[in-house]
Amino acid sequence: MTQNATELDRHGRDESSQPAVRPDAVVMARSTEDVQLVLRRCSAEGVPVVPFGVGSSLEGHVLPIEGGISLDLSAMDAILDVRPEDLLAVVQAGVRRIPLNEHLAKDGLFFTVDPGADATLGGMAATGASGTTTVRYGAMRDNVLALTAILADGTLIRTGRPTRKDSAGYDLTRLLVGSEGTLAVITELTLRVFGIPERMSAAYCTFDSLADAVAAATAVVRLGIPVARCEFMDVPSIRAVNAFQGTTLTEAPSLFFEFHGTKAGVVEQAEETQEVVAQFGASDFAWTADERERRQLWQARHNAFHAGLAARPGSAWLTTDAAVPMSRLADAVACAEEIFTGQPFTWSMLGHAADGSFHAGLLYDAQDEVGASAAKQASWALTTRVVEMGGTCTGEHGIGIGKREALVAQVGDATIGAMRAIKQALDPGNILNPGKVL
Amino acid sequence: MTQNATELDRHGRDESSQPAVRPDAVVMARSTEDVQLVLRRCSAEGVPVVPFGVGSSLEGHVLPIEGGISLDLSAMDAILDVRPEDLLAVVQAGVRRIPLNEHLAKDGLFFTVDPGADATLGGMAATGASGTTTVRYGAMRDNVLALTAILADGTLIRTGRPTRKDSAGYDLTRLLVGSEGTLAVITELTLRVFGIPERMSAAYCTFDSLADAVAAATAVVRLGIPVARCEFMDVPSIRAVNAFQGTTLTEAPSLFFEFHGTKAGVVEQAEETQEVVAQFGASDFAWTADERERRQLWQARHNAFHAGLAARPGSAWLTTDAAVPMSRLADAVACAEEIFTGQPFTWSMLGHAADGSFHAGLLYDAQDEVGASAAKQASWALTTRVVEMGGTCTGEHGIGIGKREALVAQVGDATIGAMRAIKQALDPGNILNPGKVL
Repeated sequence: MTQNATELDRHGRDESSQPAVRPDAVVMARSTEDVQLVLRRCSAEGVPVVPFGVGSSLEGHVLPIEGGISLDLSAMDAILDVRPEDLLAVVQAGVRRIPLNEHLAKDGLFFTVDPGADATLGGMAATGASGTTTVRYGAMRDNVLALTAILADGTLIRTGRPTRKDSAGYDLTRLLVGSEGTLAVITELTLRVFGIPERMSAAYCTFDSLADAVAAATAVVRLGIPVARCEFMDVPSIRAVNAFQGTTLTEAPSLFFEFHGTKAGVVEQAEETQEVVAQFGASDFAWTADERERRQLWQARHNAFHAGLAARPGSAWLTTDAAVPMSRLADAVACAEEIFTGQPFTWSMLGHAADGSFHAGLLYDAQDEVGASAAKQASWALTTRVVEMGGTCTGEHGIGIGKREALVAQVGDATIGAMRAIKQALDPGNILNPGKVL
Repeated sequence: MTQNATELDRHGRDESSQPAVRPDAVVMARSTEDVQLVLRRCSAEGVPVVPFGVGSSLEGHVLPIEGGISLDLSAMDAILDVRPEDLLAVVQAGVRRIPLNEHLAKDGLFFTVDPGADATLGGMAATGASGTTTVRYGAMRDNVLALTAILADGTLIRTGRPTRKDSAGYDLTRLLVGSEGTLAVITELTLRVFGIPERMSAAYCTFDSLADAVAAATAVVRLGIPVARCEFMDVPSIRAVNAFQGTTLTEAPSLFFEFHGTKAGVVEQAEETQEVVAQFGASDFAWTADERERRQLWQARHNAFHAGLAARPGSAWLTTDAAVPMSRLADAVACAEEIFTGQPFTWSMLGHAADGSFHAGLLYDAQDEVGASAAKQASWALTTRVVEMGGTCTGEHGIGIGKREALVAQVGDATIGAMRAIKQALDPGNILNPGKVL
């Protein structure tokens, strides 16, 4: 346990726009037993416990807003087992995504969920992360087979099985995935992994308007082309990336694709995609099976928001996180543009076009309270419209602190009541990440 | 409400080997409001409520073992919405799988989960069904996006959203999927659907031994060939099918494949598969893109157990339901053969080879208590071994009545405790399908 000021500071912030708040102390867990000990003790004394990975959360999940212990799991970073023949891996909660993939590559395997950040697997499970490859391989919910987790009173439970099919009792695995550390602390995960495809290729094209880009992506999905990634970026995103990375991408609304498959398969997918996007006025369709070029292209996409921040030193940002039924994506993006136009902040947008999910980064001066407040209001306005369209207030980032009201508006009091009953049943003392989700 | 003897009988049995037991009365629900009324009333009076679809359960889920009302949802069979552009459909809980697919086909769509039986979608969700296409398209858990459900006290809740991504609060959708009617009664479902592939083709081959067939299937999956179905059948299964359907399939351990994709894609998949299975001594590799032949082949597979029953009038059966990590499938099948050999029942086996999941049908004379008891013991012995191998006591059929002890053995008292806490929180009066799962 430490109360070192640097550590308290580090555990009192994440990548959200929520204000920083220090925990009373930080405990580094080194084993599942450590986690049990902490929870038993904190349960007895009614002290809040907030699980912490690397702090890459975007909705304030790791902020100890009711004080207590920040329980840091990042030292629990052992890859316990890789079983290529079963296409699964067993890891401690503190293992990060990029080191895991480096390790898996030795066996020709990869873990598919890619939220961009090099987050811990425990954090990704707790927040129900997804990302650019979800269109093809699913989200955390689909790729966590089993968990070891510690309940509020220190009880160890094991959920799920290392099998492709399992119908044994309540699906506690998927109840814990996305529960944001409020129902249990995840200490070990059994993950589904995939063989690295024989070929991966990337493609890129530009459009006259963002609406055309989104409509083209929708058409690709409807046609059933099994794209591995399909992302759009608007002009400000492309411009920021060019400035940040020194690339010379055309500054126009763009789609980025990735195709996985056999040698013939990726060519077929790229050709079919090119035909479809051409109908929406796509220009400069370029595709590459070159590994270095493919990585550069995706680096650009992943760096988009950081590029935006880098372009404006001293700025702060707020990220929106909407997902709608595919048919409403163009409307939702247009609606976002309408809400943001003329506001006292700058903005850029990008999205998982094939999933109907997109983010806007709203940038304002860190000292500018007017900009900050306008960004918050614009985000709320967008969320309201998205929910009205049948969408969700959070496609990927979770509820955390910032979306609690939005969750009530979305699911209604009765459903919130059922969630509260479950929270009360599993954490009667409300010590697990209090003030989040509900 | 009816207490007509025929109706009581029909609602007092399913397709399991559990003894029949009549409900006190049957209520046909015609709307979500009907379900609310029944639950409000039964909750107030402490009367058990057992949801009923078509009674195709294999583990006694619909048997009212503590009396009360059998709440029949089969008349709630409206397909409420089909949205091709969003790849989703909204249905009432009583809609059956085959009529749904007939309806979806008009829009070039299909619902992928195929357990064989023409079950209701509500029942399939409640039991967490999966089937032959899960290897490619997932189980119910992966294909139910949102639910309307009624809690024990009559409260209506809505879970999930009609979006590909959703991280909003606890995943109540996946908690209810597989909860076997013990936490809430599902009345409406939003389902993920897929476009009918450009091409579907089937292939079939035989092996010297069942172990070779299973090893070949494992190799196909490891190579990442995206098979849509991959099933094995043992000699007794093939023999029964030939007798039942008048087919002339070679009476040898066999693999059945189905491939979905583009015209070039299905050829590529079939050729790659043929190469792989040849390494395990496959003979007579035959593939067809002819729709009638493809359907006939799969008809044979789906009829396997019924063919076995038809071959022995007056017989009863018990179906096992194991799933193991892929690498243990050959061991698990060998273990099953060892346990069954010399027992006073006949048996046949088939399985979802690419999922590590398989079933044995144990047949005995309906009047033969020795055979029935031996089958039950053999099933328990297999379950024990499968759990020791890291597998699950139920891959697809659920816990129901028959697997409650097995569930405890598999997950342990602490995990059962967490499940009980959730059951107590959502159904404090224990009126929802009491005596099931826990």
